[in-house]
Amino acid sequence: MLNGTNLIDGAWVDSDHRSASVDLEGQSFAQATAAQVDKAARAARRDFRAYAGQPRQTRAAFLRRIAQEIDALGAEITETALRETGLPEARLVGERGRTTGQLRMFAELIEATTYLDQRFEPALPDRTPLPRPDLRLSHRAIGPVAVFGASNFPLAFSTAGGDTASALAAGCPVIVKGHGAHAGTAEWVARAILRAMEACDMPRATFQMVQGSGREVGTALVKHPEIRAVGFTGSLAGGRALFDLCTARPQPIPFYGELGSINPVFCLPQAVAARGAQIGSGLAAALAMGAGQFCTNPGVTVTLKGEGTEALEAAVIAGLRQTGAQTMLTEGICAAYQQGVETLRGLAQELLGGESAVAAPRSALPALFKVSARDWMATPHLREEVFGAAGVIVECADLGEMLELAEQLEGQLTATLQMDPQDMELAQALLPVLEEKAGRILANGFPTGVEVCSAMMHGGPYPASTDVRSTSVGTLAITRWLRPVSYQNLPVELLPRDLVDQPCQM
Amino acid sequence: MLNGTNLIDGAWVDSDHRSASVDLEGQSFAQATAAQVDKAARAARRDFRAYAGQPRQTRAAFLRRIAQEIDALGAEITETALRETGLPEARLVGERGRTTGQLRMFAELIEATTYLDQRFEPALPDRTPLPRPDLRLSHRAIGPVAVFGASNFPLAFSTAGGDTASALAAGCPVIVKGHGAHAGTAEWVARAILRAMEACDMPRATFQMVQGSGREVGTALVKHPEIRAVGFTGSLAGGRALFDLCTARPQPIPFYGELGSINPVFCLPQAVAARGAQIGSGLAAALAMGAGQFCTNPGVTVTLKGEGTEALEAAVIAGLRQTGAQTMLTEGICAAYQQGVETLRGLAQELLGGESAVAAPRSALPALFKVSARDWMATPHLREEVFGAAGVIVECADLGEMLELAEQLEGQLTATLQMDPQDMELAQALLPVLEEKAGRILANGFPTGVEVCSAMMHGGPYPASTDVRSTSVGTLAITRWLRPVSYQNLPVELLPRDLVDQPCQM
Repeated sequence: MLNGTNLIDGAWVDSDHRSASVDLEGQSFAQATAAQVDKAARAARRDFRAYAGQPRQTRAAFLRRIAQEIDALGAEITETALRETGLPEARLVGERGRTTGQLRMFAELIEATTYLDQRFEPALPDRTPLPRPDLRLSHRAIGPVAVFGASNFPLAFSTAGGDTASALAAGCPVIVKGHGAHAGTAEWVARAILRAMEACDMPRATFQMVQGSGREVGTALVKHPEIRAVGFTGSLAGGRALFDLCTARPQPIPFYGELGSINPVFCLPQAVAARGAQIGSGLAAALAMGAGQFCTNPGVTVTLKGEGTEALEAAVIAGLRQTGAQTMLTEGICAAYQQGVETLRGLAQELLGGESAVAAPRSALPALFKVSARDWMATPHLREEVFGAAGVIVECADLGEMLELAEQLEGQLTATLQMDPQDMELAQALLPVLEEKAGRILANGFPTGVEVCSAMMHGGPYPASTDVRSTSVGTLAITRWLRPVSYQNLPVELLPRDLVDQPCQM
Repeated sequence: MLNGTNLIDGAWVDSDHRSASVDLEGQSFAQATAAQVDKAARAARRDFRAYAGQPRQTRAAFLRRIAQEIDALGAEITETALRETGLPEARLVGERGRTTGQLRMFAELIEATTYLDQRFEPALPDRTPLPRPDLRLSHRAIGPVAVFGASNFPLAFSTAGGDTASALAAGCPVIVKGHGAHAGTAEWVARAILRAMEACDMPRATFQMVQGSGREVGTALVKHPEIRAVGFTGSLAGGRALFDLCTARPQPIPFYGELGSINPVFCLPQAVAARGAQIGSGLAAALAMGAGQFCTNPGVTVTLKGEGTEALEAAVIAGLRQTGAQTMLTEGICAAYQQGVETLRGLAQELLGGESAVAAPRSALPALFKVSARDWMATPHLREEVFGAAGVIVECADLGEMLELAEQLEGQLTATLQMDPQDMELAQALLPVLEEKAGRILANGFPTGVEVCSAMMHGGPYPASTDVRSTSVGTLAITRWLRPVSYQNLPVELLPRDLVDQPCQM
C-alpha cells in the first residue's frame, strides 16, 4: 500500500531514481532529486506566511488532528516499523503514544501565549530628556524548517517527532528527510500528516517529505536558501558535516544537532557498598534496553575500587548475559557496533562479549569492559560512543581521580550519580563539574527514559549537541523555531493579535 | 595616567609590542601576546565556577558597584573618549549614563529568578506504566565569554557595555578585547571594573581586558578552547570572519555578531502627501546624527513618486546641508565613508554631497542620493551599508514595486513605516514582509535611538546579526550567556538554591 514517493507541495511525486528497501520486500523508494528538494523548499517559503499566520488555536487543532490520524494508521505504522527497525512491537506502540502525546503537548502549549515570552513597555510621553515609545516584543516563527529523522526512534524523533511537532507548533512549515532505514514508516506517518492537513485546510506545503538514503538530499536541503533552521538527531560525523554546511551558508542558519553521548554513571562508594548488586542490575537493564540504541545509553560507569564493586560488576555481567542477543536497527549499525566492541577489546579488559558469534544477521550481544581511570583518560578511543549495548566500567584509584575524570569529560546529554546520603560530600564536589558537562543530571536513576515535559533538557555541550542552549525534547524545544521581534509605536491594526492588549510585564 | 597595559588575572601586564595611540599624544598600548590571551582565558576558566556560584544578589551588587566606579571616573573617561572618538561631550556623557543604566538594569533583572525560566515537574510516583521522576530545570551560566567593543559606542557597546553587563549578570567571566580606536577609554573603564571587583571581593579573573589593534588578539581569543561564547558589534567582514572561526572550532561556540543594516524607512503615500517636509526633516536629523555612525542609521528611504515627495526630498537636503561637516570616529572609518559615497555617486543621482571637500581630517559631510527602485533592486552595491551620514532615496513607480523591494531586502536591524491612517492597507501588506526582514518594526519614528528595556530586540536576520534569535540590547540579552540544565530526582543538597522550593509552572 506504500507508494514509495515524495510528498511535495501536497502531492506524491515519483523520481527516476528508486532505491530498493532492505527490509520491505518488493518495495522501493523514489530518491528525491535536487529539483524536487528545490521545489519543496520554495513551496514551504511560499506557504510560510499563510501557515505562520494561522491563529494559534487553529495550529493546535491541526497538531491534535495529526495525532488522531497517526492513531488511525497505528496498525500499518507498527507493522511496517517492525519490519524496518527490528524493534519490538510493545516498544513501537509505546513510541507511537509518545509521538502523539508530544503533538498534543505542543497543541496545549500554544493555546496559551506564555511560550511567546511577550513583553510590553508602555509609552512614557512625558519622560525627559526623551519620551519613551510604546514597545512590545513577541516571538515569531523563524521560517521553513528541515528535519532529519533519527534511526533509533522511527516515530518519536522522526517524521512527526519532537522537531516536527515543535516546529509546526511554532508556525514553521516543515520538510522532513525520511530516514533511509525506515522510509516506509516515514511514508505512513507522512500520510497521516497529509490527511490532517487536508482535514484542517492547511496550506499545501505546511508539511512535506523527501526521501533519500544517501547524502545528496540532506545536503541540498540544508544548503537551500529558503530553509531557515534544521533539526537533526544522529551521528557525530553526519551531524557535524551538516552543521558545517549550515554555518558556511551565505546566510548561516541554526542547526540543532543531537549527536552523541556516553552518559557517564558515577557510582559513589557508600552507595556501591550498600547496594552494589542492585545498582549493577539496574545498569545492565539500562545498558541493554533496546539493544542499547538510545542516545542516553549509559556507556560508561565510573566506580571506585572498594567494597561492593565486585558485586556491582557481577550483577552487570549477569544482567547483560541474561539479555542475550538482540536485533539492531540496521546492518550498518550492527557492523559499527561490532567494530566498536572490537576496538574496546584491544584497549580494555573484557568482562563480557568474547562470545560475539551471533545467531542472525543484524543481531548483537551485549558487551562489557573494564579499564583503569588512568588508562581511560589517556585513551581517546575509550571515550568515544559505541552505539549499542557496550559498557565500559572505569575504575578510579581514589576520589581525586574520579574528580579528575569528571573534569576531563566531553559534553554529555546526561550525567548520573548513584549515591547514598553518606556520599553527599563527594556528590557536592562532582556536581559543579557535571553541571558544566551535561544537559541533565540524575541521582539514583538511569539516563534512559527521557520524560517529555516542561522541565526536560535533552541536549548538552558539544559533542552531545551542536547548540547547548537548546533541547530536542519537552516544551522548551519550541524556542528552536522562534525569533524575537520588537514593535515600536505600531498602530493596533498592525500589531500581532496577541500583543494588542497585553498587560505590562518585565 | 593611563598605563597602556592589559588587565590579566587581576594585574596590569605589559608586553614587548606597544602600539602608539593615534589620538593620545605620547601614549602607547601594549598589544597582548598569544601567551597573554591564553593566560587570561585559563584564568577565566579557573574562576568561572567561583564567579557563577556567587549568589545573584552578590552579582547584582557587583554590577551596581561597577556603575558607581564608572561614574566616579566620569571626567577621565569623557576627556579621553573625546580625544579618541571625536564624539561630542554631551553624547559621551549621555552614553555613560546609558552604560551605567544598563548595568543597574541587569542588576535588577537578576535579583528576581524570572530570567532563569525555571520549571518544576513534581514526581508522580504512582503514574503507570512508569512513575515520573522529580524534574526541575534552570538556566546556568555558559562559561567564559569574550566581548569585542564597538568603534561607535566607546561606552555602551564596549568595555562595560551591554554584552559585558549581561554576561557578568548571567555569571560568566568576561574578557574584553579593547577596541583599537579607543584603547584609552577602554582602560579607564577597565580600571573602574577592577576597582569594583576589588571592592566586592570578586575572583581575580571575573573581568579581564586584552588590547590589540590588529586581528591576532581577537583571533586567539575566539579560538581559545576555554572561551564559550562571543559578543561582537562591528563590520560585516570582520564579524563574519570571527563567526567562521567560532563555528569551525573543534567545539563550536555561539557567536553573537551585530554586523550591519541599512534600516529602510518606507514613506507611504498619504503620509508623504500630508507631511512630506516634516518626514524629510526628521529623516535628515536621524541620518546625520552622530555623523551617521549608528547601526540603526536610516540609510535607505523608500518613497512612491507622487504628491509630497519633492517636499520630502527638499527637506532632507536642507536638513543635511544645515548639519555640515562632522568629525568621524577614525580616519579609517572616514576614508571608508568617502569611498562608499564615491561608489554611490557612480550608481545613483547625487542630490547632495558633491561638495565633499572637507575642512579637517576625519571630517565628513552628509550625502544624499536618489535612484529608481528598479535600479536599486538590480544593483547589489546600492544595497550595501555605507557607515556614515549617506542616504539613498529609492523611488518606486507603484505600490507593487514597493512590495517587491521589501521582499528583496536582506536582513535588517529595523524597518520603519512613515504612515497615516489612510495608508493602513499598504502598511498591512508590507508588515508581514518587514517582520521577516527586521528585528524591530517602527511606525512614525526613526530607528536611531534604541531604547534599553525588556521589550527591545536589537538584532535581526543575517547580515544584520549572526544570530537572529538574540538581541544585544535590553534584558532579553541575558539569554545569550545561559544554557538550560535539568535536574532529575536530585537531593535538595545538590540542587541550585533557587530550584529547591519552586512552585509548579508550565
